[in-house]
Amino acid sequence: MRIGLLGFGTVGKGVYKLVAPRADMQVVRVLCRRDLELDDAAVTHNFDDILNDPTIDTVVEAIGGLHPAREYVIAAMEHGKNVVTANKAMVAVYYDELLPLAQRMGVHFRCTASVGGGIGWLSELERVRRIETVSHVGGIMNGTCNFILDSMHRTGMDYKAALAQAQALGYAEADPSTDVDGIDTWHKLIISANVGFGVSLDLNSVPVAGIRNIQASDIENFKAHGMVCKLLSTAKQQDGSYSAYVQPTLCPAGTLEASVPTNYNLITLSGNTSGRQSFYGQGAGRYPTAYNVVQDCIDCLRGRGFYCSYGKKVTVINKLKLSYYVSGATDDALEERKALNWGDAVVTRPVSIHWMHQWLDAHPGAFIAALPVEE
Amino acid sequence: MRIGLLGFGTVGKGVYKLVAPRADMQVVRVLCRRDLELDDAAVTHNFDDILNDPTIDTVVEAIGGLHPAREYVIAAMEHGKNVVTANKAMVAVYYDELLPLAQRMGVHFRCTASVGGGIGWLSELERVRRIETVSHVGGIMNGTCNFILDSMHRTGMDYKAALAQAQALGYAEADPSTDVDGIDTWHKLIISANVGFGVSLDLNSVPVAGIRNIQASDIENFKAHGMVCKLLSTAKQQDGSYSAYVQPTLCPAGTLEASVPTNYNLITLSGNTSGRQSFYGQGAGRYPTAYNVVQDCIDCLRGRGFYCSYGKKVTVINKLKLSYYVSGATDDALEERKALNWGDAVVTRPVSIHWMHQWLDAHPGAFIAALPVEE
Repeated sequence: MRIGLLGFGTVGKGVYKLVAPRADMQVVRVLCRRDLELDDAAVTHNFDDILNDPTIDTVVEAIGGLHPAREYVIAAMEHGKNVVTANKAMVAVYYDELLPLAQRMGVHFRCTASVGGGIGWLSELERVRRIETVSHVGGIMNGTCNFILDSMHRTGMDYKAALAQAQALGYAEADPSTDVDGIDTWHKLIISANVGFGVSLDLNSVPVAGIRNIQASDIENFKAHGMVCKLLSTAKQQDGSYSAYVQPTLCPAGTLEASVPTNYNLITLSGNTSGRQSFYGQGAGRYPTAYNVVQDCIDCLRGRGFYCSYGKKVTVINKLKLSYYVSGATDDALEERKALNWGDAVVTRPVSIHWMHQWLDAHPGAFIAALPVEE
Repeated sequence: MRIGLLGFGTVGKGVYKLVAPRADMQVVRVLCRRDLELDDAAVTHNFDDILNDPTIDTVVEAIGGLHPAREYVIAAMEHGKNVVTANKAMVAVYYDELLPLAQRMGVHFRCTASVGGGIGWLSELERVRRIETVSHVGGIMNGTCNFILDSMHRTGMDYKAALAQAQALGYAEADPSTDVDGIDTWHKLIISANVGFGVSLDLNSVPVAGIRNIQASDIENFKAHGMVCKLLSTAKQQDGSYSAYVQPTLCPAGTLEASVPTNYNLITLSGNTSGRQSFYGQGAGRYPTAYNVVQDCIDCLRGRGFYCSYGKKVTVINKLKLSYYVSGATDDALEERKALNWGDAVVTRPVSIHWMHQWLDAHPGAFIAALPVEE
């Protein structure tokens, strides 16, 4: 395999290093803005040098963001090249464009590192679907949020201090919005549901709430009730209807989700024969991410394209009712639904997920967390 | 694929049911002691009917135990048939015989369901090894022991009551020795290490301690110190030397291992690029186990043989020193190594794993549990 590598940042450099000693693949050209000299590959500032090199059969996209990543990936596939990417935003947002194109062109398109970093999550979903129907995917998919929430829980520090610590350690970016507002988790959930259920979820029908407004006093309230707060994603299919949402969720202390420390991920599926399976590991970082990029390259070599066929477009309906913990804002509509107080915060009677997220949209300073469902 | 199925018990019946609707494989003949009529397969009491049917390309062994399972599997491979099995005892004990034979005959030999039941553990180890070196495998591999320990922890019930409950629910057998003495975990650890490290561990060099002698008072002591007791397996390789052992181990409350409930498994690997990865799921049961048997059949169809090449024979040396909790027996040698007491029990200074297991062999009524290593 002869690889054109787009980007030489955290992930790109990791891929370059992992590929270097391998006999079955070679990074031939690297697209990079900087002037750079590499032992084994030519460096270019011009994507066309990769696109028009007929000896390059596979493009590894490691520049991130929507543009020009999407345009490069589309051009690569149109030129008959396989694409391997870790770019969750691009895959989630342009799924309806990228998947049909890959199938039409007969090229391989893989993105295992886009969800769960070093965990073989999408590739295992692919394996699971050889036998069984997946009814549920979801879990803790963002290491930044988990690190912040875990720090707050363990030490009682406030959100700002925990975020600053995460930034100092390289777990959060200077602008952490994509992580703390749940957008990263939302992208990963969409991709997981698309692969797990063989559909294409309408992104805009999937509500998302993040952790930006959580306070140390919220954590104290959770602890007093034996709960640990995690940013959880959930997608379910049953009898042809689909639900999906991302929101802070209270997990009883001692459960598996509540026990996920620092920046780890824990991603779960439920299958109709294997039951519940969960996967725990490093959801980000140079080598874990590069590891699954190289795994995808090996699978391309072995003739494995995307994880599933492109499926029907699906709009999510979240009818399920949950009780929510709400702090930071209130109004008559919320007070009418109040069941009790935890400290100064409101705990609602069961309300629909749809209603709660609409209310949150109108109260951008509020924090919400779903209570666990009694099972 | 035309399958000869050996056994029609829990696993065999599950395999039959999962294969029935599939177009890519068919159970042609079933070996079963009982008189049985099946819609889609001929039933025989005579293994030769399967062995000598040239249209059968794959034998699924689901009778369990060492004999005649080993003899049937060897004969099947000698007749050029693939073998898929969930039989951990047979694979662990006859590894040095079965693996070279499969390689010599050029047949596929797979046993994913033998470790972790419904978890794709061995198949994921196979994938991991395409890229990285595995330095550690292990975890909670026996659902029966986890169920007993979890019940004791949650309710304070004694060992006998927890075992009786496990038996009533079908999680433990009438004679639970293989599970509670750690033998089942020991077999699974050997197979995991053999696949993960690409070696063949000398079984007799791997010490094992079980949970048979644990008392409700031990659990009280652990709780008082914020610990949860789990039966853990561990195998490590470093710089060409190998350690491996099975023993009850204290996990700090709130850690992932401590949070594994009821009869679930949690199996972990450490790789040099992906980091720590853990896999959680149903380690036993009809459909989870049958699920991975059928996955193996699909992999045989796709030309995938064993997970790794047969590797060199390795004797384990457990030099590591750990502190142990010891109850139920004592003597001068133990008292000399005492650091402190938890209730009536002794907690030792760090002693070698080798020494502790030798001492335990001489005190068969004792219970030991390793304290967590300070990291």
